[in-house]
Amino acid sequence: MVNIGSCSVVMLDGATKGIPAETAPFLIGEIGQKGWNLLAEDLPLPLAVLRQDDIAHNSRWMRDFLHASGAQIAPHGKTTMSPDLFNLQIEDGAWGITLATVQQVKVARKYGHRRILLANQLVGRAAIDGIFGELKADPAFEFFCIADSVANVRALARAAAEWHLSRPLRILVELGYPGGRTGCRTIEEALRVAQEIAGSGGRLSLAGVEAFEGLLRGTTASETRELVEAFLARLLDLAAQCDAAGLYGSGRPILSAGGSAYYDIVVDKLQRHALNSRYTLLLRSGCYLTHDSGMYRRAFEQLRTRNPALAAWSGGLRPALEIWAYIQSRAEPSKAIANFGKRDASHDDLPVAIKWFRPGGSMSQPERIPCGHRVIQLNDQHCHLEIAADSPLAVGDMVAFGISHPCLTFDKWRTLYVVDENYTVVSAVCTYF
Amino acid sequence: MVNIGSCSVVMLDGATKGIPAETAPFLIGEIGQKGWNLLAEDLPLPLAVLRQDDIAHNSRWMRDFLHASGAQIAPHGKTTMSPDLFNLQIEDGAWGITLATVQQVKVARKYGHRRILLANQLVGRAAIDGIFGELKADPAFEFFCIADSVANVRALARAAAEWHLSRPLRILVELGYPGGRTGCRTIEEALRVAQEIAGSGGRLSLAGVEAFEGLLRGTTASETRELVEAFLARLLDLAAQCDAAGLYGSGRPILSAGGSAYYDIVVDKLQRHALNSRYTLLLRSGCYLTHDSGMYRRAFEQLRTRNPALAAWSGGLRPALEIWAYIQSRAEPSKAIANFGKRDASHDDLPVAIKWFRPGGSMSQPERIPCGHRVIQLNDQHCHLEIAADSPLAVGDMVAFGISHPCLTFDKWRTLYVVDENYTVVSAVCTYF
Repeated sequence: MVNIGSCSVVMLDGATKGIPAETAPFLIGEIGQKGWNLLAEDLPLPLAVLRQDDIAHNSRWMRDFLHASGAQIAPHGKTTMSPDLFNLQIEDGAWGITLATVQQVKVARKYGHRRILLANQLVGRAAIDGIFGELKADPAFEFFCIADSVANVRALARAAAEWHLSRPLRILVELGYPGGRTGCRTIEEALRVAQEIAGSGGRLSLAGVEAFEGLLRGTTASETRELVEAFLARLLDLAAQCDAAGLYGSGRPILSAGGSAYYDIVVDKLQRHALNSRYTLLLRSGCYLTHDSGMYRRAFEQLRTRNPALAAWSGGLRPALEIWAYIQSRAEPSKAIANFGKRDASHDDLPVAIKWFRPGGSMSQPERIPCGHRVIQLNDQHCHLEIAADSPLAVGDMVAFGISHPCLTFDKWRTLYVVDENYTVVSAVCTYF
Repeated sequence: MVNIGSCSVVMLDGATKGIPAETAPFLIGEIGQKGWNLLAEDLPLPLAVLRQDDIAHNSRWMRDFLHASGAQIAPHGKTTMSPDLFNLQIEDGAWGITLATVQQVKVARKYGHRRILLANQLVGRAAIDGIFGELKADPAFEFFCIADSVANVRALARAAAEWHLSRPLRILVELGYPGGRTGCRTIEEALRVAQEIAGSGGRLSLAGVEAFEGLLRGTTASETRELVEAFLARLLDLAAQCDAAGLYGSGRPILSAGGSAYYDIVVDKLQRHALNSRYTLLLRSGCYLTHDSGMYRRAFEQLRTRNPALAAWSGGLRPALEIWAYIQSRAEPSKAIANFGKRDASHDDLPVAIKWFRPGGSMSQPERIPCGHRVIQLNDQHCHLEIAADSPLAVGDMVAFGISHPCLTFDKWRTLYVVDENYTVVSAVCTYF
């Protein structure tokens, strides 16, 4: 596996979350030489750790899935906003990186990434100028964005004219659905947007069609699958109509969908379709790399039901991101307070206590936490844990928490610590939110 | 008012959230010379802005309140984690800074703060060593932490013995309540912890008693007030018993309570009590400085009911923190999507649309947003806005959102932009989460 974080020149010191307070400034790339071990209490908690072996496993799992399916991936970089992890994904064969904002694009550009899909409308003068400036400065920069309105396309065409680029701005038309987020609600509207792009006199180029199915929810798993499949069928219809009308620009057009929940359905549905050989099928899952212990664990259980053989490959995805904290108070028999909170972990879903360890005692490694330990509330800096009366947890014990979901945990940490199977820190990655 | 952010030497560039992508690295202290104006579209959105006049107003309001009440404040620095804003608070007379973790303490120390209350138990080898190391290195560092268990106090006494400090570690005993967070559930337990501190052979010193009433909620406002007052009465009882038993160390003992919701009750209850002249009454509110448009707006409405004269001073606290975003999609008549989300604003309470502006048109300044605009959902990078069919909002319009609450908005931004009344950026502050 890639030596995560080795190339970074960021400085850390004792004011960095997770670094011992007395530590003088040092290069992040040197952290592996410190010999710091979490279980030996070398580091203050809370601490966000990436389990090296599980990251490597998940990265391989997705690479194998893509190889078997013929799809490509532009993993959504907004999940981690860590250029070191983008590098790992590119080295494992990713087509490019998906991002959500121009600032995120700029971070990836600063760290050398050349093919970027902005999965959003490009709106506002500073954002538009930022992208055109990057395109002007680097002829090798391949950039794609999406659009769902004629007004937005016209604004982009005007900007393209002002910037006198030597190549057109490449745009995917976004299809949405009633009640959804962005994206044209009907195929007719999407075609109007596509025509506006194609009719821009070469300033813009229709690079494909795009949709985000990840927020669709039925009342049952099979209803959800039907909703997703029906939506993807409409995307195929739009793609075919763009093709029939000759709206695509040069190059192989892109057919993009697939967040972190239903990418197997996307592959099944779009791969089966005859159009597939005409298009680059581009998934955008961002969360597979760390997976999680909640939202995406449940999503993977549904995938397991849909496709048992796929889910069984190498045992499936593994949660690779853990938050470690101390028990700092056991003021009631049925309650313990751990020293982390919303400042340290996502709280869309509450974290899950998974392991515990008593430093300095007879335990040689963390043990699975017994039944009867449940997170019931997070404050900014505190976690309320409901515990059984016979819980072994005492003040000063360490507990590992699984999180859900990774996007809103990564953004709580400017540095995450990569650990080996013994919880020795081998490297670290920076985030740029 | 203090020239916020003027002394910082942090570098910003186009990869920083809120800075135009093409911007070369520059010192944050120079940002006011750029002449950037939000309404002129000089900056990419989303953008977190601090309204300079409102920050100054709120800072004065709290200073006046403290002056009138005789209480002191150690504002909870975890809210902003911005040393520039800590400086403003200290210059307005704050006793010191409250913090939640040792990393936060280290940040304040790095920026020269000398009197710090850690409103948490000090747990774990790295955390304990971090604090003792700071105390050893700087005899002028005044540090206080809290404790709620004999085991924790014994661990601190052992560490103090190992570190051979020339002065004792100062600890406040924390009183809690059944079902609450940290803090001894009974006065008897709290006295045992206090006795353990006092009996440490001079290694530790009992500096006072502490409680956090901010999570108490009755079913009505008057029931909440009764709960808070009853809890504070128990705190006074504990304080008196510690005094009667001669447990306090040298110096004037501290009586500390008062988060951002009920500080007026704390002052009423503890000031009226005869004990007051014996103690330093120390509030810890962190949110007054920016206030908000949700949780603390409602809390202030309750304060207005309890104490109309106080709330009326200079018109009361004002929301000073706004998130600006573009409308990036209007794909349905009754829905607009703005380009910010959970990555940019707290989502305990949903943000509130308050103003809008159409760049490049005939509007000279933002206007109050008409009725019928309501945030109904936040995703990581998107805001779903339910709008009236006759909403003026179009793709490319700007909307200002009020937030709730500030703590979980500050931690989404490494830099926040201080603006004047015309939304010209006059300075910026950094955060260290």
